[in-house]
Amino acid sequence: MKKFEEKTLHSQSIYDGKIITLHVDDVLLPNGKTAQRECVMHSGAVAVIPVLNDGKVLLVEQYRKPLETSLIEIPAGKLEQGEAPEETALRELEEETGYTAGQLEFVTSFYTSPGFANELMYIYLAKDLVKIEDAAEGDEDEFIEIKTMTLDEAQECIEKQLIHDAKTNYAILYLQSLGI
Amino acid sequence: MKKFEEKTLHSQSIYDGKIITLHVDDVLLPNGKTAQRECVMHSGAVAVIPVLNDGKVLLVEQYRKPLETSLIEIPAGKLEQGEAPEETALRELEEETGYTAGQLEFVTSFYTSPGFANELMYIYLAKDLVKIEDAAEGDEDEFIEIKTMTLDEAQECIEKQLIHDAKTNYAILYLQSLGI
Repeated sequence: MKKFEEKTLHSQSIYDGKIITLHVDDVLLPNGKTAQRECVMHSGAVAVIPVLNDGKVLLVEQYRKPLETSLIEIPAGKLEQGEAPEETALRELEEETGYTAGQLEFVTSFYTSPGFANELMYIYLAKDLVKIEDAAEGDEDEFIEIKTMTLDEAQECIEKQLIHDAKTNYAILYLQSLGI
Repeated sequence: MKKFEEKTLHSQSIYDGKIITLHVDDVLLPNGKTAQRECVMHSGAVAVIPVLNDGKVLLVEQYRKPLETSLIEIPAGKLEQGEAPEETALRELEEETGYTAGQLEFVTSFYTSPGFANELMYIYLAKDLVKIEDAAEGDEDEFIEIKTMTLDEAQECIEKQLIHDAKTNYAILYLQSLGI
């Protein structure tokens, strides 16, 4: 038995959408009592930290409906069925920025919000970036503006909360720790 | 108008739970087309990086139902209505570990998964930790085991994916960058 395992007594499917599904479980706790758990299921995501040859970082600004504002983030996207995370990384990099990477290196992976969601985020460092002439286009409902900035400029964006999400704050701290 | 703003044409409430609510919006895109957006709403969360006087980090292991496994994480919890993030930080630290902090310092904040959720995570560094005799107890449906470890041990846990969530991976990288 896994530590503190919560056995499912009953699972109710609430929603089955394009990005997420939601189910609510009645669970048996280690003390014999019961509780309810809300579980948002997601296929996983991949993000790329693209560093240009001059040391600047390639970021994308897009509107985030749940926040009702736009954020500046590292390129990222949903892991599609049957896709390896490295493929997703290169696909999203190309679709969102028009670049491909000569070097792709795994940095880390983490669950974004394990209390209520199973989204697993893979993060890669991309170097030797090359602009593609006829780059693949992204989803037709995505509107994206590309930004290139130094690490100091990115740090300013964190302070102004223009960069304000887990994967991008992690990415900037990671690059700072490398001393890039 | 905000950059690339997506105007809500219609919002359908799907679920109203204890931790999250879910609504699905039909939105008007900048190009005049429409799309659907799935929005998980959350009241926000606060996490604490508790560093003991000997430099070890205080962590908690608990079962995470959406992942069907337990994870080792920094102490954290939901921001309750009317509560300032600093209060949540000290409350969760006490409830989950039995410690309080003489020093509490804001580190950063970030949205955990802005593509589908509005959960905002605040992170604090806690020092001058003192064990409380009659510490307040946490939620009765939370089962938690306290772990103390060095940064090297925490790094090993990241490699074994026992530590595997955004706030904790960020916290360990943050402590490494401080050279604690």
